[in-house]
Amino acid sequence: MSKNTQVLLAARPSEKPVPSDFRVVETAIPEPAEGEVLLKILYLSLDPYMRGRMNAGRSYAKPVEIGAVMEGGTVARVLRSRHPDFSDGDFVLSHSGWQSYALSRGTDLRKLDPAAAPLSTALGILGMPGFTAYAGLLTIGKPLPGETVVVAAASGAVGSAVGQIARIKGARAVGIAGGADKCAFVRDTLGFDAVIDHRAPDFAEQLAAACPKGIDVYFENVGGHVWDAVFPLLNDFARVPVCGLIAHYNQPAGAQAGSDRLPGVMREVLSRSLLIRGFIQREFADQRPLFYQEMAGWIKSGEVRYREDIVDGLENAPEAFIGLLDGRNFGKLVIRVAAEN
Amino acid sequence: MSKNTQVLLAARPSEKPVPSDFRVVETAIPEPAEGEVLLKILYLSLDPYMRGRMNAGRSYAKPVEIGAVMEGGTVARVLRSRHPDFSDGDFVLSHSGWQSYALSRGTDLRKLDPAAAPLSTALGILGMPGFTAYAGLLTIGKPLPGETVVVAAASGAVGSAVGQIARIKGARAVGIAGGADKCAFVRDTLGFDAVIDHRAPDFAEQLAAACPKGIDVYFENVGGHVWDAVFPLLNDFARVPVCGLIAHYNQPAGAQAGSDRLPGVMREVLSRSLLIRGFIQREFADQRPLFYQEMAGWIKSGEVRYREDIVDGLENAPEAFIGLLDGRNFGKLVIRVAAEN
Repeated sequence: MSKNTQVLLAARPSEKPVPSDFRVVETAIPEPAEGEVLLKILYLSLDPYMRGRMNAGRSYAKPVEIGAVMEGGTVARVLRSRHPDFSDGDFVLSHSGWQSYALSRGTDLRKLDPAAAPLSTALGILGMPGFTAYAGLLTIGKPLPGETVVVAAASGAVGSAVGQIARIKGARAVGIAGGADKCAFVRDTLGFDAVIDHRAPDFAEQLAAACPKGIDVYFENVGGHVWDAVFPLLNDFARVPVCGLIAHYNQPAGAQAGSDRLPGVMREVLSRSLLIRGFIQREFADQRPLFYQEMAGWIKSGEVRYREDIVDGLENAPEAFIGLLDGRNFGKLVIRVAAEN
Repeated sequence: MSKNTQVLLAARPSEKPVPSDFRVVETAIPEPAEGEVLLKILYLSLDPYMRGRMNAGRSYAKPVEIGAVMEGGTVARVLRSRHPDFSDGDFVLSHSGWQSYALSRGTDLRKLDPAAAPLSTALGILGMPGFTAYAGLLTIGKPLPGETVVVAAASGAVGSAVGQIARIKGARAVGIAGGADKCAFVRDTLGFDAVIDHRAPDFAEQLAAACPKGIDVYFENVGGHVWDAVFPLLNDFARVPVCGLIAHYNQPAGAQAGSDRLPGVMREVLSRSLLIRGFIQREFADQRPLFYQEMAGWIKSGEVRYREDIVDGLENAPEAFIGLLDGRNFGKLVIRVAAEN
């Protein structure tokens, strides 16, 4: 208990990450200097974007170096504060990575009220994934009442919020998920208007049948065969916010074998006046206060529901993350690093 | 002189149009009914979008039927008015197609003042191509002072306006054109900051050297190998308004042979937060009054220059149009169907 457990990036995966790409080590718990706080990590968020950080080369963020602690959002308790703005026992959102203790100079911390919402939601529905859904859907997707919004990974952290916000705005939400349990959850608990299992052999036909008026907003977080089924259904002036491409994260970079779909896609972009826009949520940071307020209200009123998939123990993070990329989680994947009290 | 010459679509081209895809016929000059005007066509605009109208199937407009008059924007003189809003001798912009006389019920006509600007400019810099440049660049591209804007077909109707408007807004304009004469015109007459000949064997290297700070706006009107050279140079948050893909118009539909570039492009869309947006100018119709006012001022002040490539005789329209798709025109291609007086 008196050691800092850390999960380091041991090797860059060529395609799918394997357990040996990570290394779990124990180091001394660091001492906070004047102006710093020592954090005890309670929850670690596991998110698909982390796969990109394991690669070398250009992305919207620097890669994790070999031998460095894996990056990630965390909820922590202030164990010892030498910073005037924080007290011992404060709960905070931090970006401390895959480890059980961390130092912070305070600038990257946001205080959390454990009475307002479960602390883990600061990594999910009330955190980065929820805000990704909110900002991407409302700023880029801009669904109008009666329009059809499609999102994949619909039981997951981002997708579940996309569909529910779409419905709050009066749009029709069609979810895509993998397997009967997730589909039932999306339909019955989240209240999507329709849900399709992307593993069904007639998936594309089912999706077309579920979107009789075409698709106005496709919130892209997966790519792969879902894109292929969605693309022909996009209406004129459809909007495609792109926040993730999980189906491609384990593929090698560069052009893929097979015929070139790009000219056909660009032709349709032109002839249907499509909008395709990649984004990361932090560019919309000025909308965060409104998001916190609105989302907290929607959770309270029951208009937005969420599901967490909580795995105990930092040492299980590598396997849980590998499973995330295969869609084996069911709900927002969070590692419980330590008990809240 | 007492016959209506018409150019009909005789056959749908499989790839490049050939002269036999068109048929020139002579029919009787129609008689205007009450509420109609009889127009004598003076100028016919030839534009790349017309290639799309020759295909069957879905686009942003219905295809021209086999045996029907080819579509197109025209400048005309009212020969005989039976409409209260128009007088004999009025000059109007119409969409009368490839013929020498046409009827109109007036709703699609815009009166032109021949003293304000040369009549043919209503088909070019002060017409649809100029407005395409204006609306696409300013509404989607949104260039900021100091940013780099790249446009191909830079001596043409749309490209020439894109670069000059970009410069008026304080951006750096880099043009791409085919051949030494067009490049000299783009640099010396239009005043672009740099121009690259896309036929040069080291075209991609030259383009990179001309864009040392990367590309913030790529106004896409060609596709093909220009896209391939531009794409790696796009900066984070770059905007790509797509108004045309002339390099692909003569290609068969569907996926192309060769490796699949789409996954790589989507990955970059995500990691660089790119915006790709197809458009047609008519969705921005509410901006037209401001466009007419601003563009007329820029032409008067000399801030915007333009070049027309005027071909005499409607019977030469098919060959001129085939040349347009090969980049053989130099400036806005217009057919002089009849003398102004």
